Parts: sequence; C-alpha cells; structure tokens
Amino acid sequence: MNNFEFKNPTKIIFGKDTIKKIESEIPANAKVLMLYGGGSIKKNGIYDQVTKALSNFDVIEFGGIPANPEYDTLMKALKVIKDENISYLLAVGGGSVIDGTKFLSAAAVYEGDTPWDILTKKVRTQKGMPFGTVLTLPATGSEMNSGAVITRAETKEKLAMGGPGLFPEFSVLDPQVITSIPERQLVNGITDAFTHVLEQYMTYPIEASLQDRFAESIMQTLIEVAPKVIKDPTDYKPAADFMWSCTMALNGLIQKGVPGDWAVHMMGHELTALFGIDHARTLAIVAPSHYKYNFEAKKEKLAQYGERVWNITEGSVDDKAYAAIEKTEAFFQELGIDTKLSDYTKEYEGTAEEIAKRFTERGWKLGERQALMPEDAEKIVKMAY
Amino acid sequence: MNNFEFKNPTKIIFGKDTIKKIESEIPANAKVLMLYGGGSIKKNGIYDQVTKALSNFDVIEFGGIPANPEYDTLMKALKVIKDENISYLLAVGGGSVIDGTKFLSAAAVYEGDTPWDILTKKVRTQKGMPFGTVLTLPATGSEMNSGAVITRAETKEKLAMGGPGLFPEFSVLDPQVITSIPERQLVNGITDAFTHVLEQYMTYPIEASLQDRFAESIMQTLIEVAPKVIKDPTDYKPAADFMWSCTMALNGLIQKGVPGDWAVHMMGHELTALFGIDHARTLAIVAPSHYKYNFEAKKEKLAQYGERVWNITEGSVDDKAYAAIEKTEAFFQELGIDTKLSDYTKEYEGTAEEIAKRFTERGWKLGERQALMPEDAEKIVKMAY
Repeated sequence: MNNFEFKNPTKIIFGKDTIKKIESEIPANAKVLMLYGGGSIKKNGIYDQVTKALSNFDVIEFGGIPANPEYDTLMKALKVIKDENISYLLAVGGGSVIDGTKFLSAAAVYEGDTPWDILTKKVRTQKGMPFGTVLTLPATGSEMNSGAVITRAETKEKLAMGGPGLFPEFSVLDPQVITSIPERQLVNGITDAFTHVLEQYMTYPIEASLQDRFAESIMQTLIEVAPKVIKDPTDYKPAADFMWSCTMALNGLIQKGVPGDWAVHMMGHELTALFGIDHARTLAIVAPSHYKYNFEAKKEKLAQYGERVWNITEGSVDDKAYAAIEKTEAFFQELGIDTKLSDYTKEYEGTAEEIAKRFTERGWKLGERQALMPEDAEKIVKMAY
Repeated sequence: MNNFEFKNPTKIIFGKDTIKKIESEIPANAKVLMLYGGGSIKKNGIYDQVTKALSNFDVIEFGGIPANPEYDTLMKALKVIKDENISYLLAVGGGSVIDGTKFLSAAAVYEGDTPWDILTKKVRTQKGMPFGTVLTLPATGSEMNSGAVITRAETKEKLAMGGPGLFPEFSVLDPQVITSIPERQLVNGITDAFTHVLEQYMTYPIEASLQDRFAESIMQTLIEVAPKVIKDPTDYKPAADFMWSCTMALNGLIQKGVPGDWAVHMMGHELTALFGIDHARTLAIVAPSHYKYNFEAKKEKLAQYGERVWNITEGSVDDKAYAAIEKTEAFFQELGIDTKLSDYTKEYEGTAEEIAKRFTERGWKLGERQALMPEDAEKIVKMAY
C-alpha cells in the first residue's frame, strides 16, 4: 500500500424525504444562490421541496447550467454572485450542476487575473465559497469529493480542477429522486460510477487488500442493482444501494494507497468535447479497448476482477482477464449503451489522430505508470472505432 | 436502507515514516499536552519520533494512562490541562490512550458540575478541545471516530461517551508501529476489529448491499492478514492492510443505514469491569454464545456471512449459519484467544446473575431490536462459562 492522506469533511444526509433538512445546514444569515440545470427539477417536485426548505433565506436562482458545465454560462453566474453579494451556493442537480458550483466556489474567491486560470494553471483551491448540494442524479460522485470538470465550448476543451477547499459542506441524497430520471440518464449513471471504480482498481497489483475488496464491493452492488433500478426506479431499496454506490465510487476512499489509471476518462473527455457524446458513454467506448491494449500490464488485476466480480472460475490468468473485459463490455451493452465510436458518429475518421495531437500539445502521458504516450492513445481510440 | 447522516472530518495520514508530519498539523502557537500509556513508546522509538516532531512546540507530557482508561487518572491529566493552560491534546497510543484523550477533550470544555456527568448523563460534546493522535496499536478504531469508553475502578463501571465534537483532527497511522507490539496485543487487535464489524453486520437482513459487502470485505481482509501479521509483524504489506482494516471497522461508515447490535460489547464490558479480562477477549467469550442464543433472529445474516466470508457452500440456511458461528469461534481460538469465561477465571459462578442485575438497574435492553432483556443476557453469559 502506498502512503496516503485522506480527509473528507462532507456531511452526507441520506434517505427518504431528507431535502427539507437543508434548512438547518445553511447559515441563517446566508444570501444563497441556488443553481440548477435545464429545469427538470421544476417538473419532478424537487424544486418545490428545495424552495420550501429555503423559505426563510434570501435566495437568488440561477438555472440553465448545461450538461458538461460550460465556462461562459458559469461566468454569468459568477457575475450574479459578485453583484448580489452571494455568500452561500446551493447546487440542485447532478454532476454537471455540482461541478459548475465547485468552479463558482473557487472563482468567487480567486484573486488572479481570470478564473480561466483555475483550469489552465491547475490552481488548487484551499478555501472556496461554502456550498451544499441536493443530488438529483446518482453518477459522478461529485456530491462527496472536491473535484470538478469544466468545459469551454469555444475551444472544445474539457479540463479538471479541484482542491481541499472544494468539498461540499453537505450533500442531501434522497434516493427517491431517481423515480423521475429518464432511463438514458440512469444507465449513464450506472456506467459512470462503474467506470470510476475501474479507473481506481484496474492497474497493476499493489496488494492493498481492503481497497481492492471495497472496489469490488461497489462493482458487485452496481451489477446487482442495475436491472432492478432500470426496471422500477420507484423500488426504494435498489435505488438507495445505487445512489450510495455512486457516491462511494468517487469520494476518495477506494483510491487511497493505490495507483490510479484515469486514462479512460482522459480519452473519453475528448470524445465528449469533439462529438458531444454523453460522458458515461464515452467511457464505455474507450474502456474495453484500453484494457485490451494494456492487457499485459493489467492482466493480473483483470483476472482478479473476473474471479471476484464476475465469478469467472475457469481458465488461465489470461483467459480470465480476457473474459473479464468481455463481461464488462457486455454489461454496458445490456444497459443499452453502445460501446463503439461508430455507433455514435459516422465522422469518426481522424479522431484518434486529433486526440493524440491534443495530448502531444499538452505533453500528456497517461495511465497508472504515466507510460501511455499520445501514440498509444491514438491506437486505443482507433480500436474503439 | 435506513436514513442516515454521515460526517467524518478526521484527517488520516497513513504510511511509512509519517509520524514526523504531526508538526504541520498542530497549530503553531499551541500548548500541547502529549498523552501516552505505560511507557512502551519510550522503548520502541515512537516517543523519540514524536518528541522530535514536536521540538518547536511548548509540550507537557502525561504518561501512565492505563488500559481501560481510568477516570481518576484522567482527572489528574485534566488538572494539568487547566493548570498549564493547555490548548491542544496529542494522544500517542492505542484505543485506551485515545479514548482517555477524548474524555479530556470533552472535560476540558465541560461547564457542568463534574466531568463524571459526561459519562452518566450522556452529554454529547459538540466541540471539544482539539486533539490529534499517533496510533500505536491497531484495534479499536478510536483514531477515526468520535466515541470513547471510560472505566471507573472505584465502582467497577465502564461507560460510553461521544459526540460530533470528539473526532480527532488528525490521526497518524504508520503500520511500522506494529513491529514492536507483543503478540498478545496483536491478536487482541484483530479480534477487537473483527468483532466491531460483526456487531454492525450480524443483525436482521436489511438489504443494504454495499454496507454488507464492505463489512464482509473488512472481515475477509482481517482473516487473510491475521496469520501473516502474527508470523512477521515486520512484513509491511499485511501490517498496512491490518491497520487500515481496524480503522475502517469502526469509523462509522459500515454502520450507516443499517441496524447495530452491540450486545456483545455491552456484556463484554462487564467481564472486563468484573475480572479485568482484556477487552478483545471478552468479545471472543461472549460472541459465539450470543449468536447461538439469538440464532433464529440472525440466521439469515449468519448464513450470508458463512457463504461470503467463510466460503461455506453446503447445507441449509440453518446449517450454514451454525457453521459460521463455529468458524468464528475457531478463528479466535486459532489466534490463541480462549473463548470461555472459565478459561480466564475460576470464580465465574454468579457472573451472569450479577451482569443481569446491573443491566436491570440501568434499565438496559440490548440488541438491534432492543429486545434482549437482562434475563437473556444472563442466559448468554451462562452459555459462555
């Protein structure tokens, strides 16, 4: 096990009918900016629950934060924060709204030239404007971590940011919110969370036994609940398991003391930036090719995953490892997620070269050994056509 | 899954040669009281590492905190805190020293008549004097939770306390510390942590799939590393798995959203108070009888535990459940832990009645359904003679 530091101060408020509890979590004298997305919360009752709980606060609303939160939109929200002397942010949404709120938390206190620096100069925010979240879509884990990914449409860039000062102060997780989520977004959430675990697990063996088993536990639970959640999102028990699994998949716990890969995300982000493909679906496109391409480096862990998560008991290490990749791809497909780039666009020619070019320009080396060069990424993306 | 709230703000600093990092965790102007136990830290080098890291601080030492931290001793430390205007506490030790430090953290700010109230009136400390820990003995999980158990020799009482203000600000976990721990304490630590998980898991089924799997993960890991840790505590990898498993066994995570039992601890505490038997050994005495006595209420979960943790694949639910209890008792015995009260004292007659009398006086009902009456405890303890 590698040395590590772990601190996660977010207060989780989990369960049925818990949205009303935000009232006692926000400081009484706060001036609140309530941030949300396209407005689905106005149809499913969440907006009403939140505004009722905030009835004793001075609140301004900012809706319309898009999926893959967009820099220009967020700069408009930042202007509201400054003009209105906002002191507390409340994100009501999924990963995009929460990530956008983290950017605003950082930008509200940033003293440099332009908030764009936070993304390009990798500014680590030590203390942002305080914020809480009401999660409406289990998927990204953003509700219990301090990272965010922001998109700039202008330049087709998607960049990561974070810092110890960007944990939500609280996050409300009411599994009942999934009852109104379209199936497309539910399966995206399952795929996203599952891939988060893979990125932190599918490396070289490091004999961190507990972290391995926790990661396997999350994947086993997602596999177990996925068909139930899709069949009937009003079934509370699997909904609760699903929601908590998504949070635990990326709250920092399972990555402590172990190497992380994250190359699937780095390549996937480019596919979203280039083609607008849903984030989760880009992961399902890239992951199988990535594991086949890096088979030798990852096969011990792939075989362990095959045995423990997919109950593959027959064959050699190589056999189990290969079967595990096939099981993973089949799992995504059974969710209704296509796993080839050509399923999403006919204009895929040149994509691999374009991504390799971008990685070269940024000087990126990827993977748990930082040994995956732009030309490797090019081959992996081609395999995923 | 039940509704829950979870917040654990302790910063964990885990790994090789990390004790020196306490220097940057304690506020520069702090006046520090360094608390420790019987002085073994002076023989194994931990004392030197800590005092070196504290060389720029104003530090007073208070040694001699005994196993099962004793109220009268702690009151002497409290006098030092008041007389010397101490502002920060540093526990260097195992669960006893850390628990004692939590009592002091609470007592230092308590404004009632006597600090004894904190224990008898169940005062929940919202904000104690800040403290950190350097863990020297993996076992209790006290390094990452907000609870403590304090003993009063005078009245042979052992009482629990806690509150959200009693999390350590930081805890340093260097697995190398176990190299100097006597085997007796190592096996106690394994048994203690294992039983912590059982208490939070072995109830009625509630279909909290992820919590179940996390609990099973910790038990599987403890079973896997126990023989390695005992054979060679200098083997770093199992030492690290052991240390992290003990912390995760009782940092609040696996108990969220599920019922808890804790009857084994309640009965075990009395055996320590009456006979001075090591805490962990009292748990190994009580647990098998407790699970046999409550077999019908717990058999589904016992069978799941048997299947997943002990790989028991044959037989009915009852068969698997019973075999799981036997496996558990055998595990303790293989660690060198006796599992009958008569192995520890010849004067066990009347113990069950005495414990039932105490529980009656306190009005205690135990177990996950609060349905275990003093007469049930009497029968369980008798089964454990």
